[in-house]
Amino acid sequence: MTGENGNSPDLTAVREVLAAARAEGRTVLTAPEGKRIADAYGIPVPEEGLAESADGAVALADRIGFPVAMKIVSPDILHKTDAGGVRVGLSSAAAVREAFVAIVGNARTYAPDARVDGVQVQRMAEPGQEVLVGTVTDPTFGKVVAFGLGGVLVEVLKDVTFRLAPASEEDALSMLDGIRAAEVLKGVRGGDAVDRTALAGLIVSVSRLAHDFPEIAEVDLNPVFASAGGVVAADIRVLLAGEQPAPRRQWSRTEIGTAMRRLMQPRSVAVIGASNEQGKIGNSVMRNLVDGGFPGEIHPVNPKADDILGRKAYASVRDVPGDVDVAVFAIPAKFVAAALEEVGRKGIPNAVLIPSGFAETGEHALQDEIVEIAGRHGVRLLGPNIYGYYSTWYDLCATFCTPYDVKGGVALTSQSGGIGMAILGFARTTKTGVSAIVGLGNKSDIDEDDLLTYFADDPHTTCIAMHLEDLKDGRAFVAAARETVPRKPVVVLKAGRTSAGAKAAGSHTGALAGDDAVYDDVLRQAGVIRAPGLNEMLEYARALPVLPAPRGDNVVIITGAGGSGVLLSDAIVDNGLSLMEIPADLDAAFRRYIPPFGAAGNPVDITGGEPPSTYEATIRLGLEDPRIHALVLGYWHTIVTPPMVFAELTARVVAEARERGIEKPVVASLAGDTEVEEACAYLFERGVVAYPYTTEKPVAALGAKYRWARAAGLL
Amino acid sequence: MTGENGNSPDLTAVREVLAAARAEGRTVLTAPEGKRIADAYGIPVPEEGLAESADGAVALADRIGFPVAMKIVSPDILHKTDAGGVRVGLSSAAAVREAFVAIVGNARTYAPDARVDGVQVQRMAEPGQEVLVGTVTDPTFGKVVAFGLGGVLVEVLKDVTFRLAPASEEDALSMLDGIRAAEVLKGVRGGDAVDRTALAGLIVSVSRLAHDFPEIAEVDLNPVFASAGGVVAADIRVLLAGEQPAPRRQWSRTEIGTAMRRLMQPRSVAVIGASNEQGKIGNSVMRNLVDGGFPGEIHPVNPKADDILGRKAYASVRDVPGDVDVAVFAIPAKFVAAALEEVGRKGIPNAVLIPSGFAETGEHALQDEIVEIAGRHGVRLLGPNIYGYYSTWYDLCATFCTPYDVKGGVALTSQSGGIGMAILGFARTTKTGVSAIVGLGNKSDIDEDDLLTYFADDPHTTCIAMHLEDLKDGRAFVAAARETVPRKPVVVLKAGRTSAGAKAAGSHTGALAGDDAVYDDVLRQAGVIRAPGLNEMLEYARALPVLPAPRGDNVVIITGAGGSGVLLSDAIVDNGLSLMEIPADLDAAFRRYIPPFGAAGNPVDITGGEPPSTYEATIRLGLEDPRIHALVLGYWHTIVTPPMVFAELTARVVAEARERGIEKPVVASLAGDTEVEEACAYLFERGVVAYPYTTEKPVAALGAKYRWARAAGLL
Repeated sequence: MTGENGNSPDLTAVREVLAAARAEGRTVLTAPEGKRIADAYGIPVPEEGLAESADGAVALADRIGFPVAMKIVSPDILHKTDAGGVRVGLSSAAAVREAFVAIVGNARTYAPDARVDGVQVQRMAEPGQEVLVGTVTDPTFGKVVAFGLGGVLVEVLKDVTFRLAPASEEDALSMLDGIRAAEVLKGVRGGDAVDRTALAGLIVSVSRLAHDFPEIAEVDLNPVFASAGGVVAADIRVLLAGEQPAPRRQWSRTEIGTAMRRLMQPRSVAVIGASNEQGKIGNSVMRNLVDGGFPGEIHPVNPKADDILGRKAYASVRDVPGDVDVAVFAIPAKFVAAALEEVGRKGIPNAVLIPSGFAETGEHALQDEIVEIAGRHGVRLLGPNIYGYYSTWYDLCATFCTPYDVKGGVALTSQSGGIGMAILGFARTTKTGVSAIVGLGNKSDIDEDDLLTYFADDPHTTCIAMHLEDLKDGRAFVAAARETVPRKPVVVLKAGRTSAGAKAAGSHTGALAGDDAVYDDVLRQAGVIRAPGLNEMLEYARALPVLPAPRGDNVVIITGAGGSGVLLSDAIVDNGLSLMEIPADLDAAFRRYIPPFGAAGNPVDITGGEPPSTYEATIRLGLEDPRIHALVLGYWHTIVTPPMVFAELTARVVAEARERGIEKPVVASLAGDTEVEEACAYLFERGVVAYPYTTEKPVAALGAKYRWARAAGLL
Repeated sequence: MTGENGNSPDLTAVREVLAAARAEGRTVLTAPEGKRIADAYGIPVPEEGLAESADGAVALADRIGFPVAMKIVSPDILHKTDAGGVRVGLSSAAAVREAFVAIVGNARTYAPDARVDGVQVQRMAEPGQEVLVGTVTDPTFGKVVAFGLGGVLVEVLKDVTFRLAPASEEDALSMLDGIRAAEVLKGVRGGDAVDRTALAGLIVSVSRLAHDFPEIAEVDLNPVFASAGGVVAADIRVLLAGEQPAPRRQWSRTEIGTAMRRLMQPRSVAVIGASNEQGKIGNSVMRNLVDGGFPGEIHPVNPKADDILGRKAYASVRDVPGDVDVAVFAIPAKFVAAALEEVGRKGIPNAVLIPSGFAETGEHALQDEIVEIAGRHGVRLLGPNIYGYYSTWYDLCATFCTPYDVKGGVALTSQSGGIGMAILGFARTTKTGVSAIVGLGNKSDIDEDDLLTYFADDPHTTCIAMHLEDLKDGRAFVAAARETVPRKPVVVLKAGRTSAGAKAAGSHTGALAGDDAVYDDVLRQAGVIRAPGLNEMLEYARALPVLPAPRGDNVVIITGAGGSGVLLSDAIVDNGLSLMEIPADLDAAFRRYIPPFGAAGNPVDITGGEPPSTYEATIRLGLEDPRIHALVLGYWHTIVTPPMVFAELTARVVAEARERGIEKPVVASLAGDTEVEEACAYLFERGVVAYPYTTEKPVAALGAKYRWARAAGLL
């Protein structure tokens, strides 16, 4: 092995190698070039050298020590094995000599015009676990580092994990645990555990290399042999990129905050295309602003009207008196550019572009034009192709949809209008308290990271849920998420998870969907709670603000229905939660309240025929014992304890505990006749996340809260 | 290789080997014994022999051919590797000699008292893919055969698949595709595909061996080397069982049918413990029978009353005039045995045991006693520890819960009372048409296979959904499911999937939960649709009878919301469905109806602003084109096409098609404000499975229907 981790990399050496390759117009580095780069970054590789003759190969092998591997070195041969250019396990001078001749001969046959620099002679790696470390350039997140076990596990089972480059040592160690076959690295079938520090160090080094040199498109160390004694990369493949994409315009956190505050808390709104005609979008927007009770100024802009809904109309937005914070566009796409110029000249900082007919219908030039105009004037664009937005705490309903006024803690955004409507209907029927609902549409400018930045600071917002099909700037999103997550949970529904979904997303918004495995790992790395589907996103958004954060891992199930206890236990495991091992004294304490044939342990099965007092006593005990951190309740409808009796006693006991400073998440599954629906609504309003006819949803909500608490560093 | 598949196995040879081992009190067979068994069943093993001296070993190796492997042969040494009893890759006479001495020496050190029969000398297997084939005795399903790739894939990733033994060749071939790493067997990284016929043949042979000899507890062929040239089992380990469990009492299909018909379609019911006192179970049961409108005879039995709810009460069930089909027990557990004797003497064929206080509270003796009494009199027992049962088409509500009278096609059973109550509430709130709801409780006698047998023949029942924590007789269940599935779908919620859930199930009903992986594979093999959770079981039960069976794999999404289209596409993949590749003429046909910027292809994105006529034309086209087999609709709430307008037009177009003989499953996801809830209910009642605020549920229901159609052989 050569090189050491922890030293500063030799940037100059890498620059020289890359310059030489570029000078020759090559995008594939040779093995000796790969070795120079590995050495520069302290990536351990086997001792090796380049032989230009059979004699030279034998001399090299003698020096390095047998057995050796030999590989063709040619800038023109990428797939060395296919070219018959690889021989391994050569144990004698004669074998090395024969191999040299054969490899060069094979190469000549395979690619007669290839330049052959010679044959690499390399010490055979010591046996160890074969792993793969590499970096790729993801279209959404840029440089990411990948890790997996070699062979079938990576190629067939896709058991690979990704992190943003550069990866910290902590990131790298989390990757070793992030593959399904993680146990292998800890030693199985009597094998030794691999040197985790060395392996993590290798991952860190490779990720730094990719980060330091954006022109390196791909690094592939495969195989790396990892053992108890260390790691060694037996092969290194480096690919260079062509052109680098231009960096996206960056706004500072302060700039974003200022613009978003004026968008979400405006004092004056102009409606371009306001109309008196029912059924027109410009009429709906005006009505919603007025009927929603917006206390600021509302200025209709319409050259053909004197007044709209009783308010003075202006021919141009430039005629509107005073500062305007937001211009809502309710005019056809073809008129947007001209009106946006006016908005820019008026110095309005935000344009909300409801119209469709831009990139989503193939009109890319039109969208580019408005982005250029906005950029020139410093106007931030929301949309185009959106339903508008709600900012409930400011009584702002700048949308053509129906108004929504249940103020609360959840901020929701959606890339698609259809999903926005589903958000609205769900929120209304579940009485979910909302701080904002924002349509993002084509995301020509304002996107999730801008809104995350605002919502992170917004005191009304306690939870953020975002539906998205792509991220325009994955890095900016991750940065914003990392700022936000320690303060409040961020739920993401990433549509286009599957190949069919990604294809549909392509037809829908022209979004270039990155590999979902990368999304999944990077979103987790950013501390985001990923919802598997629309309904889960909505339910998490509804439930998370209701639940206090857990302070520890010990979950206890208290159930009147043994059958629910079984299903709730399954759900606990499915959601990565831990059923507390109940200590003997606590077990005895529970047993005092339950029938002798009830089961303590966990679930605490109080049995079905019990009166309200049994539920009450056991729930109180669960709340009061400081070793218990969260409660999952399983209610069974009986005549002895009807649903509303259970709901009232549970809400009361939870409220009493809260008054005494005991805040624990409590979720409930109610099995019973239809009265349990009312009982669930009652409980939800009082801070207990309760669902009828399901054992999965309450535990999934608790699981989401735990995932957030872990990401926020609370556990 | 020795032996050949397809020949009749040499049962006598196996009997001799087993008898010899039993005579010595051994449960572990030696390697030579294993080889004899392998030969008897045509299981290919490497050439080998037993050496009793170093010279003998060398002679054997010379005859077999180098390289060889050598293994200690001792009935007392199970873990040969741990004992230093295995050496591989021996290429010379000297090496074989040295190995013999070392192996025997190691064995003496490892287990000084072990009997050492010698050392097995075995030809090294040709390289190939390492796989594992074995059989185990599952507590629920008896003999099952297991298959997986060797090493890490089995040990760490648990990538193993199971089938009932004996397995057919078709079963065995499905196992090769049933592991996650199935692709490996087809050849990856330039490797050849393995000989699938030979590998399947090996699986069949091993499964037959386990089936033919129930006293063989376990067979473990590990590793088996599979290559393009064939298969060879390098090691065979056979474990014998101690005592065999007594076979469970078997009823014929006719016997079951007769008893179940009298249970589910009774003409006369006695209520033992009937009461006039409100709040008593015996009162609730009487009221529900009377208020439910049961048209047959209802006979209260209560020695302390003259009449109950205006009906003559009898001191004993034996005093009741005429034949009685069902005796419902509403008395405490301690009085059940005596009353059951009376029931038996009266010749009543069914006892419905509501009381708890039997095995579930540890009173096993009491339960054994009633089972004995029932067995003696030929009385079938439902329960104990149940809420009773509903048979809606016969207006029978023999339960202490609230009545349910929405007649329909779904039969539901639950092992737990809590889950039964959830079934009731869910059914009522969703207006699910039900043929029966049955509590199974402790399943002292009647269990899922009895009820499946009845429901399979019941013309009212079109779908069966069962919640269970265990199966008393997995084989009988599979047999009943196989009879039923070709006629109607069977949905199973198996609680206790996870280790925590299984533990909770243990505390709940004393059920011995088998390995969930075995359950999962065997239930799939039986054609059962497994619901992942309670809510899914309920939703599948509600949706499956509504949907016609698909006639082919081509699913088309028609959506007004592009965002829904993306999520629906994800759900299509998640549920194992296929988005149709739309042919050019069909694409052109769709394009005639949608705006130029809409996307044809699949999803067909008609875009959000479209009038009802666009939905109507595209849905009609989707129904009429015979190449399309199922439709998934994505609705987006707009002023132009409000929810009920969409619902009405969709229901109308579907009904029109149905009148013309076009029956295709149609499911819909409605994104919009709360009016979509009413629209979904309207659609559901008219044969379109529709859900608000979710893109997952409608596709999951369609996926369940497809799984059934495949299992039923319709696709």
